[in-house]
Amino acid sequence: MLNVVSREDAVSCVLRHTQRTDVGTQTVPLFSAAGRTLACGVTAAEDVPAFDRTTVDGYAVRAADTFGASAAIPAQLEVVGTVGMGEAPRFSVGAGQCAAISTGGMLPRGADAAVMVEHTDDADGLCLVYRAAAPGENITRRGDDIAAGSVALHAGTRIGVPQIGVLSALGVYDVTVFKKPVIAVLSTGDELVRGRPALGQVRDVNGYLLCALIERAGAEPLFCGAVPDDRAKIAAALRDCLGKADAVLISGGSSAGTRDMTVGILDELGEVCFHGIAMKPGKPTIFGTAGGKPVFGLPGHPLAAYFVFRLVVADYLRALLHADADKPVRAAALSTNIPSNHGREEFLCVRLGENGEAIPLYTKSGVISVLSAADGFIRIPRDTEGLQKGACVEIYEL
Amino acid sequence: MLNVVSREDAVSCVLRHTQRTDVGTQTVPLFSAAGRTLACGVTAAEDVPAFDRTTVDGYAVRAADTFGASAAIPAQLEVVGTVGMGEAPRFSVGAGQCAAISTGGMLPRGADAAVMVEHTDDADGLCLVYRAAAPGENITRRGDDIAAGSVALHAGTRIGVPQIGVLSALGVYDVTVFKKPVIAVLSTGDELVRGRPALGQVRDVNGYLLCALIERAGAEPLFCGAVPDDRAKIAAALRDCLGKADAVLISGGSSAGTRDMTVGILDELGEVCFHGIAMKPGKPTIFGTAGGKPVFGLPGHPLAAYFVFRLVVADYLRALLHADADKPVRAAALSTNIPSNHGREEFLCVRLGENGEAIPLYTKSGVISVLSAADGFIRIPRDTEGLQKGACVEIYEL
Repeated sequence: MLNVVSREDAVSCVLRHTQRTDVGTQTVPLFSAAGRTLACGVTAAEDVPAFDRTTVDGYAVRAADTFGASAAIPAQLEVVGTVGMGEAPRFSVGAGQCAAISTGGMLPRGADAAVMVEHTDDADGLCLVYRAAAPGENITRRGDDIAAGSVALHAGTRIGVPQIGVLSALGVYDVTVFKKPVIAVLSTGDELVRGRPALGQVRDVNGYLLCALIERAGAEPLFCGAVPDDRAKIAAALRDCLGKADAVLISGGSSAGTRDMTVGILDELGEVCFHGIAMKPGKPTIFGTAGGKPVFGLPGHPLAAYFVFRLVVADYLRALLHADADKPVRAAALSTNIPSNHGREEFLCVRLGENGEAIPLYTKSGVISVLSAADGFIRIPRDTEGLQKGACVEIYEL
Repeated sequence: MLNVVSREDAVSCVLRHTQRTDVGTQTVPLFSAAGRTLACGVTAAEDVPAFDRTTVDGYAVRAADTFGASAAIPAQLEVVGTVGMGEAPRFSVGAGQCAAISTGGMLPRGADAAVMVEHTDDADGLCLVYRAAAPGENITRRGDDIAAGSVALHAGTRIGVPQIGVLSALGVYDVTVFKKPVIAVLSTGDELVRGRPALGQVRDVNGYLLCALIERAGAEPLFCGAVPDDRAKIAAALRDCLGKADAVLISGGSSAGTRDMTVGILDELGEVCFHGIAMKPGKPTIFGTAGGKPVFGLPGHPLAAYFVFRLVVADYLRALLHADADKPVRAAALSTNIPSNHGREEFLCVRLGENGEAIPLYTKSGVISVLSAADGFIRIPRDTEGLQKGACVEIYEL
């Protein structure tokens, strides 16, 4: 009945459809750029620093004049001026001369090093230098940090705090980033209510969970509410979503009837690419297109919807946003054997024990609190004979 | 000259002043709660699920009726009804009976297990069950996920995607979180310009870097621009910041003259608590209070300002927001020896080599691009004899 594919094939199939989706770029102010992804590489238009600078408070010197200087026999240099901050010095430093300078000050012509004020003394207008300086000592040369013409940041870089530093140093106050794709979220189910549920009814979890995941992935969630298990109503809501968003996540339909409805609607509005992924949880996942846009039919169980988002939908968003793959944050030893999963790739919440071991948190379907009790999740590949106690597993952040 | 303290003492001193700062709480909609910190614990007002539910599509049964059932000798049960989604069934399941049910449907009275539709067949209105079900099989009991009256989330929990799931399951659509403290950022320096710098001038980096760090820490940055190294102007700008923010970061003043100005102004408006931290980079850091509010005087070098924020200011913000301490994200072996740091705790950017080893990125003062080239940073404790090649170091995210 189901056209079940492996997760790798599911992701490949989804990514093929991503090529048709171009979310475009936009320019945002540097103050709003954190968390966004660079759409264009940034080539330095200027040297950073733009001039040779000292890194200490003290004196700009000609290093050769200080060779052999010591506490006993200091070099004696004539002070020919003071470098003001933010100014290009109008004088130069000749043999036997030096200039007072503060951290970040521009090195005067002739000088090639700086000595810290702590290693000098003032004697009748002469500067006594008690320590030899090597050429270049306590100096940052023009372009040392970032050279003009070099690629300072590559296209596709996620802008974090370090990148904000680089962009501000280069004077890039308007940053071209990928637009946030708008992802619509539609919950389905006769049992879903907003407000206090009557007996037999439940609150919508997936709507909130998926919107939070979309936002964290750097996209813009558009929550379109919950619709009952009625084919005409779901089809109308999906059409509405397709008009507003770059892709749609329909959650729910874990009951056979609704699954069939979603498949039927996709067949009518577009095409179904796969129906079922060999992963646990997350098997009853549907993917297709409608109006040329990707539509994901996610399981109704929140934990299953969570993992399908993290392991399939997130890859789609990363491709749109040219973002890096999800990396495990740590490795740990398993606290117990894990039995074979019979041909389905399995994802399991774990908590870390007192000795840093990974303790699997087995849970019934439909449970959500395990996510907030866990420290991460692990992946158990398909077709393994299970994992042994003590085996090293990689842990992904939730 | 400097009243230099260890970083631990610096943090303790800062935290003592935090007790005076109460940022208060506010209520935000669940859709905006991600990234915020819970100001109150959340006690479950209802059971999740609120009733016994099936986790499969199939039939609700009395487990005892299926004992001994097999493919050869199926149990034969009378189908007495269908459980509609979102409804409390109006019938009960007696001995020898069963009811059709979809995933998430409410278990009818009398039933204590569910069998998957795949293990059943339909024969003239009878349901043939080919496999025995244990009591409780394929059922989630009322309160199994979250029990009414239990503490679902503790005060001080940072709200991530898992917590959004729990809050939505409990119907907590308005969430009480700590207010974002407003942190003012003031850059100082005669050399700072906005727009294209003339020779000797530089662009402000710290203003952008610190605002991005403040935002990432969950607080609200208020950038108050750059002021020249003029005591009256800095004092006026500081007073202005104090009127608008919960705390102030004055960056710059790495030159001796400005340092003295900041100390002088703090002496005049409040008090100086310490002047200098035994850390590298980051030594020229000042902390005091003015108008009862914390004022941090951060180094002018962006990398030094970055580390003082991460290792000192961030602790202050975490205390205000009741957030967890920064944890290293991975461990790695050092690629090379690191010499002793002579009594200062040292923080060093590293990149990860091909074999996962941590390669220190030594850099001159004042350089910013090293942050974006690095994969993280390491901490070298005070008063060690250096670290040996191959030693295991913990890596913190940048």
